[in-house]
Amino acid sequence: MAPDRLFAGLFAHGDGAAQATDRALLDAMVEVEVALLEALADLRLAPAEAARELADAVASGNLELDLDELGRATGQQGTPVPGLLRALRRQIGSAASTHLHKGATSQDVIDTAIMLVARRALDSIVADLGEAGDACAALVERHRAALVPGRTLLQQALPVTFGLKAAGWLSGLDGSTATLATIRDHELAVQFGGAVGTLASLGERGLEVGAGIAARLGLATAELPWHAIRLRPARLAAGLGITLGLLGKIGRDVVLLAQTEVGEAGEGGGEGRGGSSTMPHKRNPVGAVALVACAQRGPGLVATMLAAMAQEHERGAGGWQAEWETLLELLRLTGSGAAIAKELLAGLQVDPEKMRSDMDITGGLVMSESVAAALADSQGRSNAQDLVEAAARRSVEAGRGFRDVLLERPEVTDVLGAAGLDAALDPAGYLGVTSELIDRAVAAHRGP
Amino acid sequence: MAPDRLFAGLFAHGDGAAQATDRALLDAMVEVEVALLEALADLRLAPAEAARELADAVASGNLELDLDELGRATGQQGTPVPGLLRALRRQIGSAASTHLHKGATSQDVIDTAIMLVARRALDSIVADLGEAGDACAALVERHRAALVPGRTLLQQALPVTFGLKAAGWLSGLDGSTATLATIRDHELAVQFGGAVGTLASLGERGLEVGAGIAARLGLATAELPWHAIRLRPARLAAGLGITLGLLGKIGRDVVLLAQTEVGEAGEGGGEGRGGSSTMPHKRNPVGAVALVACAQRGPGLVATMLAAMAQEHERGAGGWQAEWETLLELLRLTGSGAAIAKELLAGLQVDPEKMRSDMDITGGLVMSESVAAALADSQGRSNAQDLVEAAARRSVEAGRGFRDVLLERPEVTDVLGAAGLDAALDPAGYLGVTSELIDRAVAAHRGP
Amino acid sequence: MAPDRLFAGLFAHGDGAAQATDRALLDAMVEVEVALLEALADLRLAPAEAARELADAVASGNLELDLDELGRATGQQGTPVPGLLRALRRQIGSAASTHLHKGATSQDVIDTAIMLVARRALDSIVADLGEAGDACAALVERHRAALVPGRTLLQQALPVTFGLKAAGWLSGLDGSTATLATIRDHELAVQFGGAVGTLASLGERGLEVGAGIAARLGLATAELPWHAIRLRPARLAAGLGITLGLLGKIGRDVVLLAQTEVGEAGEGGGEGRGGSSTMPHKRNPVGAVALVACAQRGPGLVATMLAAMAQEHERGAGGWQAEWETLLELLRLTGSGAAIAKELLAGLQVDPEKMRSDMDITGGLVMSESVAAALADSQGRSNAQDLVEAAARRSVEAGRGFRDVLLERPEVTDVLGAAGLDAALDPAGYLGVTSELIDRAVAAHRGP
Amino acid sequence: MAPDRLFAGLFAHGDGAAQATDRALLDAMVEVEVALLEALADLRLAPAEAARELADAVASGNLELDLDELGRATGQQGTPVPGLLRALRRQIGSAASTHLHKGATSQDVIDTAIMLVARRALDSIVADLGEAGDACAALVERHRAALVPGRTLLQQALPVTFGLKAAGWLSGLDGSTATLATIRDHELAVQFGGAVGTLASLGERGLEVGAGIAARLGLATAELPWHAIRLRPARLAAGLGITLGLLGKIGRDVVLLAQTEVGEAGEGGGEGRGGSSTMPHKRNPVGAVALVACAQRGPGLVATMLAAMAQEHERGAGGWQAEWETLLELLRLTGSGAAIAKELLAGLQVDPEKMRSDMDITGGLVMSESVAAALADSQGRSNAQDLVEAAARRSVEAGRGFRDVLLERPEVTDVLGAAGLDAALDPAGYLGVTSELIDRAVAAHRGP
Repeated sequence: MAPDRLFAGLFAHGDGAAQATDRALLDAMVEVEVALLEALADLRLAPAEAARELADAVASGNLELDLDELGRATGQQGTPVPGLLRALRRQIGSAASTHLHKGATSQDVIDTAIMLVARRALDSIVADLGEAGDACAALVERHRAALVPGRTLLQQALPVTFGLKAAGWLSGLDGSTATLATIRDHELAVQFGGAVGTLASLGERGLEVGAGIAARLGLATAELPWHAIRLRPARLAAGLGITLGLLGKIGRDVVLLAQTEVGEAGEGGGEGRGGSSTMPHKRNPVGAVALVACAQRGPGLVATMLAAMAQEHERGAGGWQAEWETLLELLRLTGSGAAIAKELLAGLQVDPEKMRSDMDITGGLVMSESVAAALADSQGRSNAQDLVEAAARRSVEAGRGFRDVLLERPEVTDVLGAAGLDAALDPAGYLGVTSELIDRAVAAHRGP
Repeated sequence: MAPDRLFAGLFAHGDGAAQATDRALLDAMVEVEVALLEALADLRLAPAEAARELADAVASGNLELDLDELGRATGQQGTPVPGLLRALRRQIGSAASTHLHKGATSQDVIDTAIMLVARRALDSIVADLGEAGDACAALVERHRAALVPGRTLLQQALPVTFGLKAAGWLSGLDGSTATLATIRDHELAVQFGGAVGTLASLGERGLEVGAGIAARLGLATAELPWHAIRLRPARLAAGLGITLGLLGKIGRDVVLLAQTEVGEAGEGGGEGRGGSSTMPHKRNPVGAVALVACAQRGPGLVATMLAAMAQEHERGAGGWQAEWETLLELLRLTGSGAAIAKELLAGLQVDPEKMRSDMDITGGLVMSESVAAALADSQGRSNAQDLVEAAARRSVEAGRGFRDVLLERPEVTDVLGAAGLDAALDPAGYLGVTSELIDRAVAAHRGP
Repeated sequence: MAPDRLFAGLFAHGDGAAQATDRALLDAMVEVEVALLEALADLRLAPAEAARELADAVASGNLELDLDELGRATGQQGTPVPGLLRALRRQIGSAASTHLHKGATSQDVIDTAIMLVARRALDSIVADLGEAGDACAALVERHRAALVPGRTLLQQALPVTFGLKAAGWLSGLDGSTATLATIRDHELAVQFGGAVGTLASLGERGLEVGAGIAARLGLATAELPWHAIRLRPARLAAGLGITLGLLGKIGRDVVLLAQTEVGEAGEGGGEGRGGSSTMPHKRNPVGAVALVACAQRGPGLVATMLAAMAQEHERGAGGWQAEWETLLELLRLTGSGAAIAKELLAGLQVDPEKMRSDMDITGGLVMSESVAAALADSQGRSNAQDLVEAAARRSVEAGRGFRDVLLERPEVTDVLGAAGLDAALDPAGYLGVTSELIDRAVAAHRGP
Repeated sequence: MAPDRLFAGLFAHGDGAAQATDRALLDAMVEVEVALLEALADLRLAPAEAARELADAVASGNLELDLDELGRATGQQGTPVPGLLRALRRQIGSAASTHLHKGATSQDVIDTAIMLVARRALDSIVADLGEAGDACAALVERHRAALVPGRTLLQQALPVTFGLKAAGWLSGLDGSTATLATIRDHELAVQFGGAVGTLASLGERGLEVGAGIAARLGLATAELPWHAIRLRPARLAAGLGITLGLLGKIGRDVVLLAQTEVGEAGEGGGEGRGGSSTMPHKRNPVGAVALVACAQRGPGLVATMLAAMAQEHERGAGGWQAEWETLLELLRLTGSGAAIAKELLAGLQVDPEKMRSDMDITGGLVMSESVAAALADSQGRSNAQDLVEAAARRSVEAGRGFRDVLLERPEVTDVLGAAGLDAALDPAGYLGVTSELIDRAVAAHRGP
């Protein structure tokens, strides 16, 4: 959990969010400086002693880097890097001090450190989403046949099963997870270009140094420095935003299922979770609400990242800087959402009886398409529809059961009989390819 | 400066930002509980002793409220209020404990506390913007006659003065300040409605209690509780977003004026500000870049606030929660922007000579409209324009001075003579109502 | 209805939207040119004949202005104004042709025309919102006492009345309407500054000309030209976005009330509206869905307008241009939303019986706060709460009625008796200040 | 060019935009109905005659589908599909009429039609971006060695070449193109699920029908219907938004290069393009401004698409509907941007002499890092930097040439001599890996 945040339990929950704090970014900046100096030493562009001094100082755990002081210095020079270098130089040996940051510019350090933070956060997020998918797959299988009204525009339309509904969530989770894993593995590259992208101060060795940094940090190398071509952060932001959108879909569905009047599902969770001491009948869908809330904050932040792409010449004058906290926030929100989704889906309490009984609210009208289909062979599609519509209207207007009204019609009794009509009115018999779709979703989740 | 933020100097600088931290919100929540209990006591709905116990505990400065612990609890119950009440009850007397939070719901406390935070932040922001306006007005007057090319689509068009350019900024600053002051004085109202807005647990006294809270906190009262009608936070967010947009305009103009090739203005500031040790000729426009960066982050956050308005029934399931950190961030960014603008404008170094010399880059072509106007009486508007355009084209194609080309034309020499032509080519003579506009802007700033 | 739009019925419905088409903007641009030339003639800066020629040509209704051709020309010169001037000059007399557009720049024409379009669209929108408010006030009064569960996080919490719920909508509608009316009356000003805001080509008469244009078009005058200080379009956009957010709140509430399982309200409307031929039991809440959809599109567009504010020097290179279609779209969406809200609220079918019966779903648990309050005097607030909570838990766990469980407790029977308990369990008796709030909302709507 | 749009030349230019009009979507909806009926006929789920009748009616070109009328009907039923079906049934044979739309729901038709529109628009956009890349590659090669100041925060920093700057654009264009091509080939899938995603009315044959539609329309098939899991439209929107961001970067750079004071590049283009009749020296960077404007409109629209993802149950009540026009607009803007970028880059006029002379504005100070590097071997990195900084400061303060000041220092003359100093001051000698990066970008563009 990210520290010192009053709303951390909602917006900075779980491992992914914990990887994306300001402190984590600062630590990553130090790691970038270490990797740079080690890469320089490997190529004999800096003495091995310098690299060792720096690595030792970092490994000692005694480095003091004051976030408040560095934060203030950011206002003086536009990035925290000069302040960080000053603070490091006060605490490391003279060889390290001399060669620290050689060949790099502030942007190299910040961009690469953000990529590193993103890599670690995505590791956690992908893992949490994977577990959320596992929990969802278990729901799919447990409730694959549990009838529930399919709802369009929040109106009951035709039957589905809760398994199919959860299969939709599952396919979305798997799709999001795959997208983020791809981004983690291919988009997160070292930025190393020096002041303007030419690496001039390293002569002809700059690209080798960059490759060395990438190898040490476990990041990809980029074809070209990307200091002013911001496809990588934009794609990362978009992937996070899309994942948040998907989590918001799941959260909203659960909020709706958990309504007092619907009560088809509810959140589990330990003592006190979502409870209200003054209203003991209430169990607030806290996790689902948190998912919706995280999701609602995504689009605006993604918009900021996209709007920031038009960065001037060799370093943006405002756009680049606007990315920093925005990207960290997106990582935290997605991390929090993934962790919450995992817990929510693992603990979701499903009430198949309530689902089944909600199928009956319309007195069978929800099955009218099925009845029309059953009559289509004998009467033609059009006539069958007309007959059913008339019966449905009569049922609604007269307040009589749809089945009763239908049984008065000889076209129905002659062709289907009461048993045939009951079959046509049975939601379980009108599920189309539900089972096959569920199989597909589960198989895709399990992988080859 | 907001603490523990790596980029605080850019995005959480100054007094306004310092008022809008998570800790400040927590403190404000406590103040709301105090005001509630005092209002209850005033109306004899709670014992005076209870109010005194709570007020004393708060005033003692010994209350321990652990942000980390409260943040975690937010994830359990969806808001930090239950956790806060538990923590308070552990540390206050029993009368206070019994009557604490009476009649209120979590939303009352959070919404009202955010309004309180906003009030304090806006006090600082309005003050900083006012000082920014003062500094800008000084620039207007000092440079009211300093000629500078007016630029449309970043192409030199016709002359303006730097005073007029700064008068535009000034009118924008004054407009933003007025908007925020109005919001502060009229939109920031107590939210007090109880669980669903009826204040049922207080019988018929609820509205009196709300009025009492408002009086104690110095906030407005609302006609109706606004728990699910979010005009107030939306208007606040919009006002902040518009102010950020205006600050971004000023920042972008300064960045452009400070370009190495333009060099018409630059940031002052103490030792080291914006400097580069490796590139001593550079003085980065750090403040202006920060303004642009703050501004770039506004629109997405405002969008989040507007999208959050569609809150369900008597309390939003996601939208309300999405507002909290978003609004704090907007307050911090605007506060930071206002403080930076104040410093930037107070220290702005203007180079009137460079401005004047940039007027000559086009060899007088920038004055062609003026020449055409001077010739219009004698030749008709159309003919005069044709003549000037032909001369301008020739000047460009032949690489000769515009004045020289014009002096070859008898229509010019006969009517204007060299002296008349020089007058028409003098930017200072083609400024229209510049002076009157400057007077208007300064007078409006000074007020009646 | 705006023409040639496949989704016009949702997003370009009603009078406000019809005022904000591309064609309407083009017409408004012509009106601006007419007003300019007439203002010039009034001041003897152009011959009266020129103004008359232009006005006559426009009044004749024979002007041919090809939207396709002008649209293409916009790509050549960056605005449609040069193309419009060419087209006009082909069709007007020579005096008009000579003096057309004198003193103005393209931006003056487009900005002022957009303000004019906004004025007309806002006239319609304010009127439609006013009628929506009237319809809402009628709902408030008709259903002021209709009990309905208040819902927080979509969980039943405590009773409200539908009148109070609609009173919330009403206060929001009135607030939005007032904001838009204020914007219409004070923010919509002529932009008139010439190429760079100095009005140089009109010598010292430029401001008089601007005032003349304003008088003729019924727009406000601005203290300074606002070509690069975009507070006015930003405030307009924000006002529209906030109104859309409020309409989305109403739409979402109606969608939720209309759920098959809730069925407390539904849309009226003529034959076929929202109906489904294949599912005759369904009546889709088409208007409410349209409100939500319009509202969902607002925040992104407002963000675009705010991000566009950082316009360079004397004319923005991208930001200004990005405003044009964005603002028209916002006007259309708000116009459409206002018209739909008016129809929706006028036709809303409310089912007080279903609302009342939904109050009983929790078997009285929803009234536990009321019971605790009734017991507080005799037992102390804490003990009373503990007692009620225990009873509530037992009721839920044992599946027994809350009333029955309570009646087993002597603390209850001794103090309240069965009749007193029933009174405490009666939702109608636990409405707090509902009635007063309803009175306030209606009185505020009716005005002084 | 999309018709009837006043600003079409900026925002709806080129082939991609022309594919994404309301009319094109309507046509695509008809194509979906044709493909559905043909797929049914192939599987003997509908008579071949029905498919033939519909196909013939469409092929005849005589179908009358009134956009205004359909647009209005959208308001009655929430989608244009019922109106379209009515209009079709009036104009096709009775077999076609009977089987039209069998098994499908409105959402199937609209979602699939949007995918079809996107496929065609992306074909054009990918082609235009490819040509833009070709033009950019030509610029890279032509100007690979043209020295130009690298600028960070719009301050001159170190030399780059224009070839390298354009290589950055090229890598961005190639990255965007690849992303959009991948989306086109893999994300654009048929949506076919019937009312709630089970395809119940087609029994067990529904997935075969869906596959048949996909084959006929050249779209992918989806593992599951995606009616409420909106990853596909969200990814499409994100890809478009990222591409717009990249185009905005190019546009902004060109606007900055074209500034009157910089003049290092300008737009070509035929007679009148960007010209100003009253200011003949001006050549407005119309295309570059249009790129920035298109780009500015992207982020808000992408935010709308992401916010729309949280769609309720089996069909969204507002979110889905909000996607329609938003996605069309994004396609038009990206199409317009791609077409404009192609033209802009093909016609870009580069002025290498002005670039080279701008390198000298700082009197050599821009090369101080290079001088320090040249001195580092003899004096140590730290001492060399100190020496150069001191000289630079003195040069700035005394207004003397940097070279002259350096030549006074024996540490410089002894080690480097005047010739060596001149070499260190030569921008062409301090370009690092510029050439290799250019080779990489061009090779990547050319492909294997």
